[in-house]
Amino acid sequence: MKKNAAIIGYGNIGKYVLEALLASSDFEISGIVRRNASDVPEELKNYKVVDHIFKLENVDVAILCTPTRNVEPHASEILKMSINTVDSYDIHSNIWNLKQQLSPIATANKAVSIIAAGWDPGTDSVIRTLMEAMAQKGLTYTNFGPGMSMGHSVAAKAVKGVKDALSITIPLGEGIHRRMVYIELEDGANSETVKHLLKTDDYFVTDDTHVVFVDDISKYHNLEHGVNMVRTGVSGQTQNQILEFSMRINNPALTAQILVCAARASFRQSPGCYTMIEIPPVDLLEGEKDYWIKKLV
Amino acid sequence: MKKNAAIIGYGNIGKYVLEALLASSDFEISGIVRRNASDVPEELKNYKVVDHIFKLENVDVAILCTPTRNVEPHASEILKMSINTVDSYDIHSNIWNLKQQLSPIATANKAVSIIAAGWDPGTDSVIRTLMEAMAQKGLTYTNFGPGMSMGHSVAAKAVKGVKDALSITIPLGEGIHRRMVYIELEDGANSETVKHLLKTDDYFVTDDTHVVFVDDISKYHNLEHGVNMVRTGVSGQTQNQILEFSMRINNPALTAQILVCAARASFRQSPGCYTMIEIPPVDLLEGEKDYWIKKLV
Repeated sequence: MKKNAAIIGYGNIGKYVLEALLASSDFEISGIVRRNASDVPEELKNYKVVDHIFKLENVDVAILCTPTRNVEPHASEILKMSINTVDSYDIHSNIWNLKQQLSPIATANKAVSIIAAGWDPGTDSVIRTLMEAMAQKGLTYTNFGPGMSMGHSVAAKAVKGVKDALSITIPLGEGIHRRMVYIELEDGANSETVKHLLKTDDYFVTDDTHVVFVDDISKYHNLEHGVNMVRTGVSGQTQNQILEFSMRINNPALTAQILVCAARASFRQSPGCYTMIEIPPVDLLEGEKDYWIKKLV
Repeated sequence: MKKNAAIIGYGNIGKYVLEALLASSDFEISGIVRRNASDVPEELKNYKVVDHIFKLENVDVAILCTPTRNVEPHASEILKMSINTVDSYDIHSNIWNLKQQLSPIATANKAVSIIAAGWDPGTDSVIRTLMEAMAQKGLTYTNFGPGMSMGHSVAAKAVKGVKDALSITIPLGEGIHRRMVYIELEDGANSETVKHLLKTDDYFVTDDTHVVFVDDISKYHNLEHGVNMVRTGVSGQTQNQILEFSMRINNPALTAQILVCAARASFRQSPGCYTMIEIPPVDLLEGEKDYWIKKLV
């Protein structure tokens, strides 16, 4: 029995979610919800594009591809329709609060919400959990990049004199990062002034920040990202257990794929709100559990 | 409320399980079950050492540290006492069958059994599952070692003319392994004959097997092991997603630590039999779920 998924928001993540849904055989696409429903690009011609989820029929799960700040209101509204939701909410410090907000709504409406279901937070969180289990004492370092930081790029763009900007996160090890900020100046802007404003901005002031002026930011844009997580620690009373996870990925493609897996897993949980470390990993996979136990365990 | 754990079997794994239990504050030790209960080494002086679990009181979970072939009869018997069991059963091709055997017994006796809870099968299985979710098409290679293969060492010891042997698994990449077999000959044994017998043995005939003759195997024994798992594949419709997990570890120490985590998780599942890919990862960790969601997600 296929499940019907709606895509809420059609930016970078939404586009890759459409591709990921098409690549999995257990979902039908109910439609796409976007603010301007008359903006229908070629690849959406065969789907319902509407400006509100109320206008779609037969939605089992809504995959939220909106900016993080819109996740809570969207999820709340959709869960009240007894429709499951998944999102890749990414403000680490507020995930627990989001869970507290959505849990009673999900439970009351017999729906499931899986939150923070991207790669970090998301699959990285699961790996940190496994590493913590494998070595109950020790230090875990999460080293991001090289890859674009959306938040830092937006912050750099907001600096006076900046026409466009791109902030790349460079891992220096032990969870320390350098910021490489590529900046296209507005006409007449003073490069030294811009550099000073940027380096003293809240987003950058505590990091080792390097500014590079370029002619055309669009030549530098790309969707690559990666992570390297290392834990060295103690299993029981035995030192020097060394655990490491690394990946190099297309960022929105991976986020979208994990969202689709979480959407699938949502139908396998009891009503409530979950982070990824609270759901059985096999629930993420298409098909029968027994098949995967035989293949992967 | 602390849980009471019994250690069943006191070889390498059992010793490290004792250490891991002592390093976690949510377990008490009910006692140790071993065939010869009068064999009580110094570190067991303060514990009950008995020859049958019937002789221990207040056991909530039995941690099976017996050879793999004894897991099924021990787990069956103990589950019938409504005591949870965990094991690191390691014959991949038979794990699903073991689950079928133990499931009805666990359910009927309102107990939980978590099987194949070591590192491979075990945490590696969880990582393979995550990697499969993150890239739904592609190839995963599990490269073991360098480290001792218990099964291959035992097989080498069984060859006529071999006094003692140690088989080290060397990863060659893409899941292909070389066997380095260190052999101490019996007096008068012919090295060429032994080499031929070994290389044509079922355990070795399909692998690239190298035989090295040494004077004293005991100088080569060690408990190190490791793994490198690589998956390259497709997330949705996006190629070239590169995922990798590696570790270098003390083998029985890690197995023991995971067994203790699984013992903890057993109290957080409904009655039944589970592999590690079927249980929420956060259940492996000591303490409150909310603490870990705030810290790790």
